[in-house]
Amino acid sequence: MEIRAIGGYNEFGRNMTEISVRGDSIIIDMGIKLDMLTINEDTEIEKLPHEEISKLGIIPDVSRIKGKVKAIVISHGHLDHMGAVKILAGKFKDVPIYARPFTAELIMRDGVDKSTKRRVKKVQAGEIVEVSDKISIEFIHATHSILESSFVAVHTKEGSLVYANDFKFDDTPVIGEKTDYKRLKQLGKEGVKALIVESTRVNEERKTPSEKIARELIMETLTKADNDKALIATTFASHQQRIKSLIDLALKINRKPIIIGRSMTKYNSLAKELKLLDFPKEVELYRASKSVARRLKEIQEEGKENYLIITTGHQGEADSVLSRIANNVFPFRIEKGDQIAFCADVIPNPLNIASRYILETKLKLKKARIIKGLHVSGHAFAEDHRYLLKLLNPEYIIPCHGDMSMLTSYAMLAEFLGYSVNRDIFILRNSQEVEI
Amino acid sequence: MEIRAIGGYNEFGRNMTEISVRGDSIIIDMGIKLDMLTINEDTEIEKLPHEEISKLGIIPDVSRIKGKVKAIVISHGHLDHMGAVKILAGKFKDVPIYARPFTAELIMRDGVDKSTKRRVKKVQAGEIVEVSDKISIEFIHATHSILESSFVAVHTKEGSLVYANDFKFDDTPVIGEKTDYKRLKQLGKEGVKALIVESTRVNEERKTPSEKIARELIMETLTKADNDKALIATTFASHQQRIKSLIDLALKINRKPIIIGRSMTKYNSLAKELKLLDFPKEVELYRASKSVARRLKEIQEEGKENYLIITTGHQGEADSVLSRIANNVFPFRIEKGDQIAFCADVIPNPLNIASRYILETKLKLKKARIIKGLHVSGHAFAEDHRYLLKLLNPEYIIPCHGDMSMLTSYAMLAEFLGYSVNRDIFILRNSQEVEI
Amino acid sequence: MEIRAIGGYNEFGRNMTEISVRGDSIIIDMGIKLDMLTINEDTEIEKLPHEEISKLGIIPDVSRIKGKVKAIVISHGHLDHMGAVKILAGKFKDVPIYARPFTAELIMRDGVDKSTKRRVKKVQAGEIVEVSDKISIEFIHATHSILESSFVAVHTKEGSLVYANDFKFDDTPVIGEKTDYKRLKQLGKEGVKALIVESTRVNEERKTPSEKIARELIMETLTKADNDKALIATTFASHQQRIKSLIDLALKINRKPIIIGRSMTKYNSLAKELKLLDFPKEVELYRASKSVARRLKEIQEEGKENYLIITTGHQGEADSVLSRIANNVFPFRIEKGDQIAFCADVIPNPLNIASRYILETKLKLKKARIIKGLHVSGHAFAEDHRYLLKLLNPEYIIPCHGDMSMLTSYAMLAEFLGYSVNRDIFILRNSQEVEI
Amino acid sequence: MEIRAIGGYNEFGRNMTEISVRGDSIIIDMGIKLDMLTINEDTEIEKLPHEEISKLGIIPDVSRIKGKVKAIVISHGHLDHMGAVKILAGKFKDVPIYARPFTAELIMRDGVDKSTKRRVKKVQAGEIVEVSDKISIEFIHATHSILESSFVAVHTKEGSLVYANDFKFDDTPVIGEKTDYKRLKQLGKEGVKALIVESTRVNEERKTPSEKIARELIMETLTKADNDKALIATTFASHQQRIKSLIDLALKINRKPIIIGRSMTKYNSLAKELKLLDFPKEVELYRASKSVARRLKEIQEEGKENYLIITTGHQGEADSVLSRIANNVFPFRIEKGDQIAFCADVIPNPLNIASRYILETKLKLKKARIIKGLHVSGHAFAEDHRYLLKLLNPEYIIPCHGDMSMLTSYAMLAEFLGYSVNRDIFILRNSQEVEI
Repeated sequence: MEIRAIGGYNEFGRNMTEISVRGDSIIIDMGIKLDMLTINEDTEIEKLPHEEISKLGIIPDVSRIKGKVKAIVISHGHLDHMGAVKILAGKFKDVPIYARPFTAELIMRDGVDKSTKRRVKKVQAGEIVEVSDKISIEFIHATHSILESSFVAVHTKEGSLVYANDFKFDDTPVIGEKTDYKRLKQLGKEGVKALIVESTRVNEERKTPSEKIARELIMETLTKADNDKALIATTFASHQQRIKSLIDLALKINRKPIIIGRSMTKYNSLAKELKLLDFPKEVELYRASKSVARRLKEIQEEGKENYLIITTGHQGEADSVLSRIANNVFPFRIEKGDQIAFCADVIPNPLNIASRYILETKLKLKKARIIKGLHVSGHAFAEDHRYLLKLLNPEYIIPCHGDMSMLTSYAMLAEFLGYSVNRDIFILRNSQEVEI
Repeated sequence: MEIRAIGGYNEFGRNMTEISVRGDSIIIDMGIKLDMLTINEDTEIEKLPHEEISKLGIIPDVSRIKGKVKAIVISHGHLDHMGAVKILAGKFKDVPIYARPFTAELIMRDGVDKSTKRRVKKVQAGEIVEVSDKISIEFIHATHSILESSFVAVHTKEGSLVYANDFKFDDTPVIGEKTDYKRLKQLGKEGVKALIVESTRVNEERKTPSEKIARELIMETLTKADNDKALIATTFASHQQRIKSLIDLALKINRKPIIIGRSMTKYNSLAKELKLLDFPKEVELYRASKSVARRLKEIQEEGKENYLIITTGHQGEADSVLSRIANNVFPFRIEKGDQIAFCADVIPNPLNIASRYILETKLKLKKARIIKGLHVSGHAFAEDHRYLLKLLNPEYIIPCHGDMSMLTSYAMLAEFLGYSVNRDIFILRNSQEVEI
Repeated sequence: MEIRAIGGYNEFGRNMTEISVRGDSIIIDMGIKLDMLTINEDTEIEKLPHEEISKLGIIPDVSRIKGKVKAIVISHGHLDHMGAVKILAGKFKDVPIYARPFTAELIMRDGVDKSTKRRVKKVQAGEIVEVSDKISIEFIHATHSILESSFVAVHTKEGSLVYANDFKFDDTPVIGEKTDYKRLKQLGKEGVKALIVESTRVNEERKTPSEKIARELIMETLTKADNDKALIATTFASHQQRIKSLIDLALKINRKPIIIGRSMTKYNSLAKELKLLDFPKEVELYRASKSVARRLKEIQEEGKENYLIITTGHQGEADSVLSRIANNVFPFRIEKGDQIAFCADVIPNPLNIASRYILETKLKLKKARIIKGLHVSGHAFAEDHRYLLKLLNPEYIIPCHGDMSMLTSYAMLAEFLGYSVNRDIFILRNSQEVEI
Repeated sequence: MEIRAIGGYNEFGRNMTEISVRGDSIIIDMGIKLDMLTINEDTEIEKLPHEEISKLGIIPDVSRIKGKVKAIVISHGHLDHMGAVKILAGKFKDVPIYARPFTAELIMRDGVDKSTKRRVKKVQAGEIVEVSDKISIEFIHATHSILESSFVAVHTKEGSLVYANDFKFDDTPVIGEKTDYKRLKQLGKEGVKALIVESTRVNEERKTPSEKIARELIMETLTKADNDKALIATTFASHQQRIKSLIDLALKINRKPIIIGRSMTKYNSLAKELKLLDFPKEVELYRASKSVARRLKEIQEEGKENYLIITTGHQGEADSVLSRIANNVFPFRIEKGDQIAFCADVIPNPLNIASRYILETKLKLKKARIIKGLHVSGHAFAEDHRYLLKLLNPEYIIPCHGDMSMLTSYAMLAEFLGYSVNRDIFILRNSQEVEI
């Protein structure tokens, strides 16, 4: 079995890994690197051939793929795992794209062409799919910050491999099931040849807190919010668990939950459609700018204190609803004491830090009250990583989802448990491979 | 009314404030600065006159007190608020020392002489005590990281003052009552002339999480601990809520809770004696080195995996039980995979950081598994401060419990809400006063 | 004498101070806050009344001025000290604007209207100008990172005040004289009533290195540059000393110095015109985009290795020549191994950090070799501040040029030397005043 | 040729590398890790077998050495390169120890036994020594922060290897010659098989400043020191260049240079003895505590302002002269305004940071004036590393002298220049080897 690092091994983003067994390959994940997209925003990306887009660090370099690709497998619906499908799928004509239903729908709604859409296959967690006579794949449910996240198990005659990118172990999720520990244990018993595993937060020497903790932080903080002022909460559009907590909060403090914005509507409507999320009848969604503007005007006039506005903007994205509110684009004013709750931390790269700083500065000029820290991570901290190793006891480990300093941090953890770099831990660079 | 900064206005530690009304004074808090004690550990402190100890930055400079002292009031039992009583009480002959029962007992057990002991008066929260014909005092229950913490209200003809040093607003404490919001609101309505308020964590733009969150972090993390290895949890001896959670955890994961060490025994025994904390019968306490050693030996021999050892050492204190375990002082070995859970963060000064680093390095040399982050702060973050100002609406504000950068950070928060430095916010330096 | 903080006391930028003596006032400095300009770049500033621009934090709030303004005095040519003249001068009809010649010319070329231009009066360092029968002013030469910087002495019957904002003590400047220590000592002997002093870098417990050190870092680093690759050096357009060192370097390593860009040309041409800087004949300057493009094309074709290109872009400014080069705007390619020397550090606010990060990322995608650290600060560090206090021995101190944390850091230094906050050190907020 | 990482590849300290050619080996460097010595200071190291000392992370694990050791080669005299000779040399009976004269003498004076002393062989830079029929070694002079530092070239039939650990490129050293660039270029032309290279400061994207810069910082800062107060300068005892600058400063400002302390005397006397450093007649040295105390008493009585005291203590070492002065051990008082110049930065590990913090806090309690920043690094920054690669153009690279994050940072630099991890850059862990 060969494991080939295509993307996400030199950086955080644009994840792609090739697994080959005697010539047959599968590709796991096809992600984009969003900050490189921002950095190159003055370049007309869509006009470039994908080799050039890859050189700009935005998408993985698929010219490095060596095997005959039998399947594309998408682990979950975050853009750094599936955002390049629309650019790259055309390179792999007729190759089926496997994903769990929520992820599959997200792919189909992400601007892919018709022929790509047709290739998207919905697979249930637990189902084993034979993608070639040498390779079968299986989605194993895992908790993370988006619904229907999965470990991907790759079953071959040379043994099984587990792809754990991304995950955290959350035993009290707000929506959905716990990770399928039973199946992981079973695989561990049968023997796992190799583990490909994210390394993003391995330096945190503790356990990732459950989403339930984020929920309680939201509850205890925002029930004490001023009830005669606006309350706007901002979080990831794709984080249905967090949004559920905000809706529940709204009802508790007698504010009407209003969800606004394009991507907010996209993810929540889909979750509702797939019955993954149950909306109380009080919830309103507004997608298009015009209807958003109209509703915000009413809210401003009727009394902002009666609403909880849920929207995007926590990274200070210039085109988010919150940034546009701060720029007076809508007929809605931030006034002294109005409350902005950031229910997501900044992803700490200089671009996000600056965007968020600009947004917060503008809000503070308007005398808004800014509330932060209503967040827990979606990535495994050290204790979760230790637990995964205990469950699977893999023969070989390949850390991913980070630059070399993250990958080596994971290696340090594994060495502490008895593994050794260059022996059974492999640090790969994009385009490198290891045969096991 | 004059407010005089005696200690804790240039630094974090050695708290002391004088409140004077036409010649009569009360002293609130009489604390020590522990890190300066450590820095000067090669000096024989006990042989120095207190003026010299004060010059070393260890205790407040009582020569700055100007009024006729009618009462010493101790807000709560942390050493930076009461640890200098044993050194300084003698300077104020016959002056009564007021405290709530738990604090009062702690003072009496902290090495004070007999005549001082006799002066300690136990006051219940809610009770109003006339300490002179010009001044009455009142303890108002507040949540913090030690039992029976209080705001101190000072009632005079010139109006009331509230001393809020230290506190956080915790509506789901693990032991004890919520803060007495009702009384605070009432005072706010009647009019609060001045607020003296801690500033330590005001830069955190969020709410301090409840102790319940720490409890859940402990539960979700340590229920996943390896059940065939030792588990040692370390936290503040004075933090009975945290210890209660650890005891409950122990029972849940079928380990016997063993509390060891001098100060651990002191605080817990007192809390039990005063019926503030209810110990299940499984709990064992060991105070003296000899009995600690004997019990640790048994544990080592019988099977470490059956116990949860609760002890001090989270700041890496050289004389703590955990440091002594790491130094092989006891007949108890840390072995590969044994788990050390730090249920308290390092107080980030260079001394603690180094001590903790030494301790962790030693534990890692023994291949221990270190688990961190099982902690929430006991100090008010920005949102708690905003809420206090909303409740009390004081005319004047004097921030305390920090160096000038902390005090001015508080001032920035208050300015945002409409106050103004030099007008109704006063930044005092130790020895300075303001008349209002 | 009243000292009124108008701008630059709550923040770093938009400096303005009013000094009043029995009704007559002078304004010292009239600066802009550039980062707030950037943050509000989607607002059409030029269409706003200046009260609104002031509310956005961009310019000082002149409505706070209370006296009858007799003179506007500009200490030096940096935009945070003179950049608001074009917006605000019209508010002070017929009031003369005093500055040293280089600064005066910069003001006149900064987009001011004709009537303002007519009011600009050139004053030599050392000259004493009576601006009213109660107030005389005097420029005292000081070293800083722009030519003809000055302390401003304000002489009144109530005593003298010195305004030291900005400066450093550089005894080996690359161009120009040392600070006029003799005059400062003399003032110190005669008695200085008050010192208004910058606080920006007071936390550095050392002396600011001389510009000569920056020159040597440039020499020792860039003489080792690859001589078969491009070499581009970027620094402040207004830093003629640094640019002089770069020109000297170019001649030493046999590269032709090419200075390009609008502001580079503006400052250097003026310095040359005023005979403050002597250009060797090899230097070429290109201002307009078209001529820049033409020359860059030639350089690309003839051999980049024969040139040292000196330009702006060290803060990653999107419209700088270097950013435009990185964006392929010019017919000039950055190729593998081409060398970009940053002869100025990032001013560490999130906006600059992000802009610079974007620029560096783009350059690295092109495989450029990035060289940093060829810089020393232009602001006084602690040792320079101590020395100034020794020279002047002022009765009162008012720190400026920073937010409250910077001002209080200065206060800590002064307290160490015997001053005391609230007694003879005054921390003012914008709009506050002190009478001495 | 096999390269075996023995020590210093998992950490900063205890350097040791084995080079093997068909069974014959040499060991380069035999260092100690001082901070692990401090951490384990409660352990009686000298009573432990060296296997145990190695397990504590203090010395390299020589059990990992596989070849027949023909020579021990010591690159320079810092303890992390030679401090374990006294513990480990006995393991390699009769094996000669090669070093340049200054280093050789330091080894002989570092508590080694007689038989070890006899094996120390002095080699001049440039001399090629055949240590077995398969291996010759050669010291190539390099600049660093101790005299007679060297690259070590290892010549074999399989090609040459260069060991560059530690160095910086300083073309204007205060004492001694520049690096022997000519020889490095020559080796580069002949072909270098492998480069073993330090990685400590590779993340600094600039050139290491020359020691001349440190000299100028000292001169420009301390010529402005108060001439009526004490002036104490502290730096590394082994840094003769820095000390030379301090002596020259003393003469310039008419203070008598007094060098005090055990290690200060050791290094300086040796340098003088070997005629590497020429002392002016005014310099006095005091080694033993008693004579130090006597001289300090005189200085205190005669007038501290007439002396420049040069001593150790910049890392806050508890037993340094400066720490003992701060602790009032000597009949010498630090008084208000006395000046302490730190001519060396803290090596930033938590232990040093805490020790230095303690020292500075004590000095500030005595109102001393602390001056920092009179320092430049002795380690290669990125530009020096690039230059070395240009000179040598090695086939393979093995970074050393750091933990995995440092080693991989070096790898990133080398990848930028065309090398690739796992292909021609090898990241080794202690005990691992690579064959090339």
